[in-house]
Amino acid sequence: MKALIGFSAFLLASASAFAQVPTIADKDLKIAAELRDEALKSSIGYKVVESLTTEVGPRMAGTPGDAAAVKWGVAKLEELGFDKVWTEPVTFPTWKRGTEKAEVIAPYPQPLVITALGFSVGTPKGGLTAEIIQFDTLEDLVKAPKGIAEGKIVFIKNRMKRARDGSGYGPAVSARGRGAVEAAKQGAEAILIRSIGTDSHRMAHTGMMRYEEGVKRIPAAALSAPDADLLENMTRRGKPITVKLDIDAQDGPDYTSHNVIGEIRGSEKPDEYVILGAHLDSWDLGTGALDDGAGIGITVAAAELIARLPERPKRSIRVIMFANEEQGLVGGKAYAEAHKDELKHIITAAESDFGAGKIWRLDSRVKQDAIPVVEKMVKVMEPLGITYGNNRAGGGPDLIPLRGYGISVFSLRQDGTDYFDYHHTPDDTFDKVDKESLDQNTAAYVVFAYLTAQMEGDFGFGLE
Amino acid sequence: MKALIGFSAFLLASASAFAQVPTIADKDLKIAAELRDEALKSSIGYKVVESLTTEVGPRMAGTPGDAAAVKWGVAKLEELGFDKVWTEPVTFPTWKRGTEKAEVIAPYPQPLVITALGFSVGTPKGGLTAEIIQFDTLEDLVKAPKGIAEGKIVFIKNRMKRARDGSGYGPAVSARGRGAVEAAKQGAEAILIRSIGTDSHRMAHTGMMRYEEGVKRIPAAALSAPDADLLENMTRRGKPITVKLDIDAQDGPDYTSHNVIGEIRGSEKPDEYVILGAHLDSWDLGTGALDDGAGIGITVAAAELIARLPERPKRSIRVIMFANEEQGLVGGKAYAEAHKDELKHIITAAESDFGAGKIWRLDSRVKQDAIPVVEKMVKVMEPLGITYGNNRAGGGPDLIPLRGYGISVFSLRQDGTDYFDYHHTPDDTFDKVDKESLDQNTAAYVVFAYLTAQMEGDFGFGLE
Ligand SMILES: [Zn+2]
Ligand SMILES: [Zn+2]
Ligand SMILES: [Zn+2]
Ligand SMILES: [Zn+2]
Repeated sequence: MKALIGFSAFLLASASAFAQVPTIADKDLKIAAELRDEALKSSIGYKVVESLTTEVGPRMAGTPGDAAAVKWGVAKLEELGFDKVWTEPVTFPTWKRGTEKAEVIAPYPQPLVITALGFSVGTPKGGLTAEIIQFDTLEDLVKAPKGIAEGKIVFIKNRMKRARDGSGYGPAVSARGRGAVEAAKQGAEAILIRSIGTDSHRMAHTGMMRYEEGVKRIPAAALSAPDADLLENMTRRGKPITVKLDIDAQDGPDYTSHNVIGEIRGSEKPDEYVILGAHLDSWDLGTGALDDGAGIGITVAAAELIARLPERPKRSIRVIMFANEEQGLVGGKAYAEAHKDELKHIITAAESDFGAGKIWRLDSRVKQDAIPVVEKMVKVMEPLGITYGNNRAGGGPDLIPLRGYGISVFSLRQDGTDYFDYHHTPDDTFDKVDKESLDQNTAAYVVFAYLTAQMEGDFGFGLE
Repeated sequence: MKALIGFSAFLLASASAFAQVPTIADKDLKIAAELRDEALKSSIGYKVVESLTTEVGPRMAGTPGDAAAVKWGVAKLEELGFDKVWTEPVTFPTWKRGTEKAEVIAPYPQPLVITALGFSVGTPKGGLTAEIIQFDTLEDLVKAPKGIAEGKIVFIKNRMKRARDGSGYGPAVSARGRGAVEAAKQGAEAILIRSIGTDSHRMAHTGMMRYEEGVKRIPAAALSAPDADLLENMTRRGKPITVKLDIDAQDGPDYTSHNVIGEIRGSEKPDEYVILGAHLDSWDLGTGALDDGAGIGITVAAAELIARLPERPKRSIRVIMFANEEQGLVGGKAYAEAHKDELKHIITAAESDFGAGKIWRLDSRVKQDAIPVVEKMVKVMEPLGITYGNNRAGGGPDLIPLRGYGISVFSLRQDGTDYFDYHHTPDDTFDKVDKESLDQNTAAYVVFAYLTAQMEGDFGFGLE
């Protein structure tokens, strides 16, 4: 509750339209429970993911797959009987992966499996050959004597830790995001990181990296876990290890994709709405089944189940398939910008973007007097194995801009134990989606969406 | 015992030098038990695999890796104190993998992960585009109406079954070996099979295929399991699926590699010997840790443990690192041919070529009156969780030629439940080797090698 102290006064003063203590009717709790049980028997979400991964597949921002996904999204929402389906433009710079090869040249010649990180520059034509300099962590690289990596290829061997809540990702991912900048500052020609992942398969994990104004832009790639092991084992032998990188990634022109939005129109307060989000884009290596086909399937299915009821809920429910989450949360930012005059119409929002593992916890971000309503919601989710966490929900990556405006968000927290085995690799494919778990997610989302669309009162606005 | 009936008369008549009922001294059983316990604490085998995969890595027959492996093998056996180390030439045709790409062109454009099968021809320059025709099994393709695949790419979707003893491999692998011939007979332009494997990772499994005189040579490749799923899911939609293959594999010139042999010289009967075998070559995709680095590690370590004893065993122990098993058991055939005048000097033989899973069963192939000695050997292995199987041991792929001459062989049967998750893929890397299991293998091999080198009498010759 800590987060709630201190702003309720502000809230009451500033958001008069949002000052009602929320309540949920018993009959709505009963309908929510029925929807939950219906969801567990449903296979809509699973079919939606199968459809997206089969008929579209990889859909990296700015590629033909992106355009195909937008077309698919509109058609799918229309097919499933949403009341209104539309798109909103999202413009961003693009990046093209080319061939990417790496090999140890000496003293133990053998190929390495790598993948370029998003927005990495390529190597000079014909490749780049240099000695490896190994660091345990990004911090070690930063703290090392100035110029230590001069003319070398930095290799960061840090391993990400497996955890149900994905908490190993944050500490590890800085090597991906900032590695190239820090390596360049130390004089390096390129950087290789151990993939930010928890598997031990020979597939490298891609993902975004960034350059910094005034710092040399050097190529950045991730090694698969077994290849990182290999470099470590070679390095342990004490001889200089020479590696050749050949990467021809490059930036492309700006591109306009679209957020795809489907609405179940509310019967009493159609202009107030609940947002269910997921991102439609994926990286290029896999078919984006877990990241974030699953989120698309879960949110679409939850809304569709509500649309099957004899009556529309009181508020509208918007399913937003965000464009280009992967390369900078661009769709999420565009939505917040385009709808900035109606932000108070958003009653709350939740994004599903963590695979298809079962939800085990619900976190909220609501005003303090709304907590009893959240507790009622959790009660309906309890049979799904879900308990209440705290009132500091993040809501999901594409909701960060909305959250920044003080909009209420919820996090339906999934079991991510295996998520980073597949995340951003070629292995993110449909077979990794467990139908039963996906249905459990849909069940939780339908409870959340229905109850928030039905309740009286609000969750507050201007939340910190 | 069934296999033993009927040939003992022949045996007694034809193999007078090999007519002694074997016996094992109690003190040797005691030493074998000590060696077994020593092996469980040892890490030689594990270090040998680490060394081979790190310093050599992929070593497909006829490649620079092959030559590096031979050099490595000689150096490793010398370093480990074998009494005699030598090589014997093995000549064979070679094959070169080039780039290999596949993609669905229509109606759902997306890339597919494939790998060419060993000795496949390439596609015409610029690739080959055709419609997919799907079959459940190779048998269905064979039994289908004549010319059914005219101008098409055959896709065989059969899935290999997981089993501890690897029994799913045989029925499935015919699609790899004979698929191209049968597809060509039905008019096909190329063939894609679901990988012969049990995993669901996005890596295709390579392995040998064969052409037939007088039948058109068409390109043959394997799809990773998720890609085979994808094609199946696309096919289910009922529209024609067009795929483009671009493979530039080709045959190369003949090459001479070497069997690498290390001997622990016997103290009493140095010219009689026990063979411990494994193959030194691997496919090119992984580092050949399980196939067959593990076998190399296990057999080298077993012999090395015996070499540490204060006295040499009575008979010699030969560790043979066979050249080019993968592309036709060439090293095994060469050894049998080169040593055909001394076959009776081989007391028995066993090859380790099924990964690093624990041994759970011992099969023998010995004359009937030798069974009591085998039972004593099994008793020493019992604490390792090993029981006796039957007297119809296969012995291992490179021992097929020796077995054909009626030489006794043993099969120390490993748990292969996970073996085909990695077999012939990029994922066959050192991290997949479990040290404890590898040591258990070494423990069983050292018991086998020591007791057979020490026992009085023989296992028979001319066995069927
Ligand atoms: Zn995502
Ligand atoms: Zn992602
Ligand atoms: Zn093998
Ligand atoms: Zn093999």
